[in-house]
Amino acid sequence: MAHIALPPGHIGIRGAMAFRPETARPMNDLVEILLTGPSTLTKGERELIATHVSNRNRTTFCHNVHGAIAAAHLGGNEALVQQVKTDYLQAEISAKLKALLTIAGKVQQDGKLVTQEDVTAARNEGATDLEIHDTILIAAAFCMYNRYVDGLGTEQPNDPDLYRERGKRTARDGYISSSAEYLARKN
Amino acid sequence: MAHIALPPGHIGIRGAMAFRPETARPMNDLVEILLTGPSTLTKGERELIATHVSNRNRTTFCHNVHGAIAAAHLGGNEALVQQVKTDYLQAEISAKLKALLTIAGKVQQDGKLVTQEDVTAARNEGATDLEIHDTILIAAAFCMYNRYVDGLGTEQPNDPDLYRERGKRTARDGYISSSAEYLARKN
Repeated sequence: MAHIALPPGHIGIRGAMAFRPETARPMNDLVEILLTGPSTLTKGERELIATHVSNRNRTTFCHNVHGAIAAAHLGGNEALVQQVKTDYLQAEISAKLKALLTIAGKVQQDGKLVTQEDVTAARNEGATDLEIHDTILIAAAFCMYNRYVDGLGTEQPNDPDLYRERGKRTARDGYISSSAEYLARKN
Repeated sequence: MAHIALPPGHIGIRGAMAFRPETARPMNDLVEILLTGPSTLTKGERELIATHVSNRNRTTFCHNVHGAIAAAHLGGNEALVQQVKTDYLQAEISAKLKALLTIAGKVQQDGKLVTQEDVTAARNEGATDLEIHDTILIAAAFCMYNRYVDGLGTEQPNDPDLYRERGKRTARDGYISSSAEYLARKN
């Protein structure tokens, strides 16, 4: 049970966002730009960064739902998502994405751990400054979303089918449409 | 020097936001609602929560600037801000704010550390569910802002006068006006 009285019938961040639609709106705007907006990183790559950080923060709802969205963008390749969670350096992903995941993993712990060498390594694999910026901000933002979901004690079920279904829907519709849904319910 | 080529002439988060105004906008919208929007917590109390979290994350720019904004809202009481940074349980603040700072400090480490007992303790001192929610989200959001500022290796000077001046201005004008400034520069 959540620590405060959240509207019933929602899991994870959705209950928290339904409780406070005023703050849900910029939180959804941010994730929409970062994960679905114009970018030279694919949506699958960006969702893998979000999944990696959420998994390291052990936030059940977030790493499951973003893992499912990543898989939906990657042609249903759930095994690849699992491999990234377990040991991304051995996964069949580009050297550039590996370098970006290393930076994201450091941001997850403490932004001060990122070194110029980490950034140079990513650049040497072809990463642009904007891709490095967005990787750092995705990682930082998921340190917020994860703490928000965990700190409120939201319900975080462990049913793969449930996340698979949501993952497909969000991969198709994006995040803002969900935000509109919260606002409609509240108003 | 920052890890990527940020626009010159800005310190801390401002350089990062000038680099990417699209993401600056929702980040500023969120902090504006949380720290300056309608609330039964005073602006000074909310800035102290932001300062406490930023100080624990050792993010020089954020704990200095939000400490200065807090002081501006608290009649210039810099000693109180310093006491909250050093040992908030001994500070001359309400028992309710102490209970909320305890929750914020746990979120700063890991949202899963927050217990129902922490929440009950805050309620027993008069905290509402909305105040508890906003405390958790302020703490979570500053884990994002702090990692963003640190992860990019932004310039974070240590000049109290500089932060005092900015603190007064932001306490007076809010965050959105700064966001508009970034967008104007970019466009």
